[in-house]
Amino acid sequence: MNRLWHNARLMTLEGPDLGIVEDGVVACENGVITYAGPRAGAPEAAETIDCEGRWISPGLVDCHTHLVYAGNRAREFELRLQGASYEEIARAGGGIVSTMKATRAASEDDLVAASLPRLDALLAEGVTTIEIKSGYGLSLESERKQLRAARRLGEERRVAVTTTFLGAHALPPEFAGQDAYIAHVCDVMLLALAAEGLVDAVDAFCEGIGFSPDQVARVFEAARALCLPVKLHAEQLSDLGGAALAARHGALSADHLEYLDTAGVAAMAASGTVAVLLPGAFYFTREEKRPPVAALRANGVPIALATDCNPGTSPLTSPLLAMNMAATLFRLTVEECIAGFTREAARALGRSDIGTLAPGKACDLAIWDIGQPAELVYRMGLNPLHARIWRGQ
Amino acid sequence: MNRLWHNARLMTLEGPDLGIVEDGVVACENGVITYAGPRAGAPEAAETIDCEGRWISPGLVDCHTHLVYAGNRAREFELRLQGASYEEIARAGGGIVSTMKATRAASEDDLVAASLPRLDALLAEGVTTIEIKSGYGLSLESERKQLRAARRLGEERRVAVTTTFLGAHALPPEFAGQDAYIAHVCDVMLLALAAEGLVDAVDAFCEGIGFSPDQVARVFEAARALCLPVKLHAEQLSDLGGAALAARHGALSADHLEYLDTAGVAAMAASGTVAVLLPGAFYFTREEKRPPVAALRANGVPIALATDCNPGTSPLTSPLLAMNMAATLFRLTVEECIAGFTREAARALGRSDIGTLAPGKACDLAIWDIGQPAELVYRMGLNPLHARIWRGQ
Ligand SMILES: [Zn+2]
Ligand SMILES: [Zn+2]
Repeated sequence: MNRLWHNARLMTLEGPDLGIVEDGVVACENGVITYAGPRAGAPEAAETIDCEGRWISPGLVDCHTHLVYAGNRAREFELRLQGASYEEIARAGGGIVSTMKATRAASEDDLVAASLPRLDALLAEGVTTIEIKSGYGLSLESERKQLRAARRLGEERRVAVTTTFLGAHALPPEFAGQDAYIAHVCDVMLLALAAEGLVDAVDAFCEGIGFSPDQVARVFEAARALCLPVKLHAEQLSDLGGAALAARHGALSADHLEYLDTAGVAAMAASGTVAVLLPGAFYFTREEKRPPVAALRANGVPIALATDCNPGTSPLTSPLLAMNMAATLFRLTVEECIAGFTREAARALGRSDIGTLAPGKACDLAIWDIGQPAELVYRMGLNPLHARIWRGQ
Repeated sequence: MNRLWHNARLMTLEGPDLGIVEDGVVACENGVITYAGPRAGAPEAAETIDCEGRWISPGLVDCHTHLVYAGNRAREFELRLQGASYEEIARAGGGIVSTMKATRAASEDDLVAASLPRLDALLAEGVTTIEIKSGYGLSLESERKQLRAARRLGEERRVAVTTTFLGAHALPPEFAGQDAYIAHVCDVMLLALAAEGLVDAVDAFCEGIGFSPDQVARVFEAARALCLPVKLHAEQLSDLGGAALAARHGALSADHLEYLDTAGVAAMAASGTVAVLLPGAFYFTREEKRPPVAALRANGVPIALATDCNPGTSPLTSPLLAMNMAATLFRLTVEECIAGFTREAARALGRSDIGTLAPGKACDLAIWDIGQPAELVYRMGLNPLHARIWRGQ
């Protein structure tokens, strides 16, 4: 099948900037881009679509989500606003344990049904690839169920789903100690789930309230033994040197990074590890320390953005709002915001087949009713998506 | 016409809190609520609608918007992120003058067409009444065009539009001095536009970069001579005593209020003036001073919320996101957020016929796919509106 979009303005994201082409054409065959560039030079096609001057960008890539879970934490949110303490919320059944319980109690079908409205909200804003983490099951059976639900979402909707095993997210109540649980994560859960083809990458939560660098290193070694790429929740609440640890293990990305120090930036730069910034969590948790954007830029660390969609710290299902938050709160430029949800997000997933408009890439497009790229970042709550194309359709 | 919604959970907003009714019924006749309460006691109706356990709230009221304008300020937003100074932005044609020029250059039809997508975004989240200000025309002819476009929006869509004349928004370049322009606002523009039935209320921008308290007082006196209610943009960037001035003139509301002091709170409490908080503008301009919410509460000042939808400081078209921002940034409770967009917003417009579910009120409803009211405030970017009912349909 042979198709062509013309009379469009392109953000190809090829090269370091937005790669703008006025009066551009994108052509595709069998779901793969065969041409993206100026009208002069474009091929013929059986089917042509007039974009009437609209902008085309690569389909958006949400490279860090916890989309699959049951329940929600609205009640906990409400209690916090009433001034409840952490203990009171814990006693009222809040916190990550409440999401773990709800997720364990849900069937795979329940998880798919609960997650579809969230996925649909992302797709409505042009997402064509999404990463989904486990980490609310915290047992072999329940982590499997979460990852299978994630895969199912990719069958229910026209979107590419990439799964990440985040068994090392929190300590489940069955385990008395973290080391024993990490051994179970590495020796039992990861082995089984990887063998079942449910794991595209491995993640962990490196934090005082999560797991220590040594424990994370064990998880990374187990992943390496299976030739699985790794990434890390690092420096969100404190500086444990997680990003440098991730860099030493050749991690695809280190994510959050509000407390990242100079050594961490340098380590990431040296290893080519992507900095995934998550402004929704920064905003929702009222964090005051901002990630070191200037240092990341100065050292050439690639910067990606994601929604971090999760029930506890970022109940966010709008990539456009995440871009606005990255600009407003972190002072990322318009180009950085758009690249952060396309080219750099693809890089954070280790994917060279998506994220820009170029021959050989998957024909995943977002077609926007805007006059200029900055409108994608500037507005809050208005969705200018005209059409979403996944694999050429 | 005689219609009834049953198997619903109601937030009636009657009384000081959410007024929750489990297993509730709303009945209406000819667009007016005849009953809102428990199933036992509900009347019969020709047509019955099963809400399947969903929640019904009053339709949302957006009581402070600048929805009608031409152009946008995305380019200015982009330049600011690149570090441009105010002078550079002014030289690049940015600022309120750019919106004035675009609005003056647009036809009434252009303004309607440009504003409809913004209005539709609000309606999609359950808005049934919207206030729209002029203030980008800044000449009799262009202010008239803006207000006529606002009225037209109320014909194009099933929504109640209330118009506010904000001639005293900024000094247009034709006028050398503010006093001369204020005289023109009062003696020419307001008189003419009120006579044409285009003005439901009168507003002004009391600020160092806007108009002085004395100039605002002149506008308020002109409004009083026409028996028009007044309101004020006050204490957004500094404390000029605007809220107290508004209170002395019996204003419906004083809006923004980040820099409101104790005397201003007391004056508002004494006059029953509503505090309209605008967290979208607070967020977008990266203001750090928060409005004195605790003092407003302690003094019993009613608190409303609005989007402040405008191109310069709050390009926001999501009341749900405004609620989330009010909770996250200002620590308003869930009840305050929902009341702020219903009961208290109606009060800020001086409207006793909307804003709660009670016999005699307009049957403007929002029906939500949620499990609990807090979900309206907690999420970011997910719209759980199931149906919007305006005047019973
Ligand atoms: Zn995360
Ligand atoms: Zn305003």
